[in-house]
Amino acid sequence: MDNRREKWGYKGIAGVIPNFDKTVRGYLNLITSHMDHSQIDQKPMIPLGHGDPSMFSCFRTSTVVEDAVVGSLRSGMFNGYANTSGIPSAKRAVADFLSRDLPNPLSPDDIYITSGCNHAIKILVSVLSCPGANILLPAPGYPYYEVNCESTGIEVRHYNLQPEKGWEVDLASVEAQSDENTVAIVLINPGNPCGTVFSYDHLLKIAKIANKLGIFVISDEVYHGLAFRSKPFVPMGVFASIVPVLTLGSISKRWLVPGWRLGWIAVNDPNRVIRETKMSDTILKYMSTSPQPATFIQAAVSDIIEKTEEDFFYKTILTLRESADICYALIQEIDCIICPHNPEGSMFAMVKLDFSRLADISDDVDFCCKLAKEESVVILPGTAVGLSNWLRITFAIDLPSLEDGLVKLRNFCNRHK
Amino acid sequence: MDNRREKWGYKGIAGVIPNFDKTVRGYLNLITSHMDHSQIDQKPMIPLGHGDPSMFSCFRTSTVVEDAVVGSLRSGMFNGYANTSGIPSAKRAVADFLSRDLPNPLSPDDIYITSGCNHAIKILVSVLSCPGANILLPAPGYPYYEVNCESTGIEVRHYNLQPEKGWEVDLASVEAQSDENTVAIVLINPGNPCGTVFSYDHLLKIAKIANKLGIFVISDEVYHGLAFRSKPFVPMGVFASIVPVLTLGSISKRWLVPGWRLGWIAVNDPNRVIRETKMSDTILKYMSTSPQPATFIQAAVSDIIEKTEEDFFYKTILTLRESADICYALIQEIDCIICPHNPEGSMFAMVKLDFSRLADISDDVDFCCKLAKEESVVILPGTAVGLSNWLRITFAIDLPSLEDGLVKLRNFCNRHK
Repeated sequence: MDNRREKWGYKGIAGVIPNFDKTVRGYLNLITSHMDHSQIDQKPMIPLGHGDPSMFSCFRTSTVVEDAVVGSLRSGMFNGYANTSGIPSAKRAVADFLSRDLPNPLSPDDIYITSGCNHAIKILVSVLSCPGANILLPAPGYPYYEVNCESTGIEVRHYNLQPEKGWEVDLASVEAQSDENTVAIVLINPGNPCGTVFSYDHLLKIAKIANKLGIFVISDEVYHGLAFRSKPFVPMGVFASIVPVLTLGSISKRWLVPGWRLGWIAVNDPNRVIRETKMSDTILKYMSTSPQPATFIQAAVSDIIEKTEEDFFYKTILTLRESADICYALIQEIDCIICPHNPEGSMFAMVKLDFSRLADISDDVDFCCKLAKEESVVILPGTAVGLSNWLRITFAIDLPSLEDGLVKLRNFCNRHK
Repeated sequence: MDNRREKWGYKGIAGVIPNFDKTVRGYLNLITSHMDHSQIDQKPMIPLGHGDPSMFSCFRTSTVVEDAVVGSLRSGMFNGYANTSGIPSAKRAVADFLSRDLPNPLSPDDIYITSGCNHAIKILVSVLSCPGANILLPAPGYPYYEVNCESTGIEVRHYNLQPEKGWEVDLASVEAQSDENTVAIVLINPGNPCGTVFSYDHLLKIAKIANKLGIFVISDEVYHGLAFRSKPFVPMGVFASIVPVLTLGSISKRWLVPGWRLGWIAVNDPNRVIRETKMSDTILKYMSTSPQPATFIQAAVSDIIEKTEEDFFYKTILTLRESADICYALIQEIDCIICPHNPEGSMFAMVKLDFSRLADISDDVDFCCKLAKEESVVILPGTAVGLSNWLRITFAIDLPSLEDGLVKLRNFCNRHK
């Protein structure tokens, strides 16, 4: 056998292997590995680190949504391959859905159906990755962007979100970080990890700066519809006449089905910049060898969008608001943790660790590992999202577990004062 | 606006854009574009170029298969994200399914669930693409390999399949094409595009040569189960103690649901070569940023595999055999077309054009374009699969359409004598 093993050498991959350890899942695996599994019966895991609430009964999707999929499946008409950019009915449904809130309506040709929003991110990062290019990403942000940028070779430059200003974009840092090789700026709105909802005026300012810099805007709106306070969600496509906008979205969060893997890229391009630079052609060519969502799920999209009852969304919003309020209130009771901004959208709050009030803890990763070990509470360290010594807490979980988890967090902090 | 357009320059992608034109779908788009669409009502398209028979009622999947998906969907337990390499129940079901025919049983850890077999191809080509490496692909073959190799930079070397020997592998050409930088040989069995089923003895010879050369075998068995004559299908994993085998498969063809996008890589590695060279780790890391099949479809895999009635497979096999026989018989009646081998498996026959008996036709692509224009019959030119002046004819279509299409093909040939 030794001889044989020498034969079958494996010299590895061309380019960069995706760094799984730096994804949210990679970090959560690390934190979870520190749990005391001998105690798991007494102390079941309380997950406050995830972005997938679908396992909790209060976040179950609507039966209308299930019915739509059963209908397309039972028809027997959607067992075959789909068009590269998605089946026409799905593209039309997404275009109509997004156009409800846009001055420049989208057509089906502006929509590319992807295998979830992560896939949309991967496609756009790859399509923009010309040699020497750089891209502006938010800090804190969503590390899947950074991991894909590293794989494709596009340089990452971070601009700041400002906790003291409700996590608004630091516009000066956007200008400071950009140069003639900057191709795009990524916004995540409603915000992951900060729980922000950007105002109309703030988005307008960003659009004007992007216009001035001549860079595209990638607006990650996967949490579209999950703005639960008075500030309404404004899609960036509203400003597409000022700057070309590539909107990313998905049924994952609004319809609470992240495992169905159906997302989209919407090209908001009334001035035909993205068409005329041939970027849209390149998106299509790139997608021609990409995986696609199941055809029968694509075929259900029009019913999912048109038939889901308003009550379902209303209930989700109420549940998230109540959870966010409880999360914010309970965190106020913990001395060594500061939450600068009560979340307005998405499923997350960013909180800061006050190390002047903590002993025996070296940093946020250490904090989360020890918390998992002692209390079986899993929280994502801020390092994972680009802000060390902060934590990202998910409040999209059933209320008793949320309260239990935050009480355990408080006990942990009190023990490590 | 002119000023603005200069601002938003798009300089393209790093590396090579996938060449959509060279995929099967790209060629079929080209051929279809030559159809006379003003005549479409009188002459509806007869598709003899595809690899997806699911649109025909005689190739509809079983209700048992639909039931499995409805069950997992309605449970509400599979709306969330799946593990990177697939959910445990799906991995176990695929391992058990493949192990039925293997001397060295597979474990769930040997299975990686992918978004269809094309995705499995993309993953493996990427994982093997170290600088300077080359890979042996069959000619004729399946162009998705070539397109992905071009994107990742791995050098393609073709070995020959021999029409005069029932499309068996030309073993001498395998040896002649390989060198110290060859990492793997790809087999497609049952064969696309040739409709071959390799014998046990022939596969054993290939295993021994791959052992001698010290190269991995990638065995594309997406048509597993679709061998419809006396020669049984033998999985390459049978020879895994001689050579490490990466088997690719899918529910697409056997269960007639290509649009469901669920495939797999199975690592047949009793000598732990693939594990110890860390190739399996790299597969997992690569997959950590790859799209995945919908979780509820993954959750249905065990029921799909265990509960589908034998009658369903029997009926598919009978239908394919009858279609292949009719296809072969009708082609014998066409002077300028020669079919050297009656298909034994998959959904395709390769036939050769005799240009000494054809006028006004320059090559296979020209033949297919004119056939589409004059008869609305769509056939894939051999150039698409690496063998110019041949054609790949799909017989997996309802019998009346197959007969109609082949009569029109004969009329076309008679007109162009």
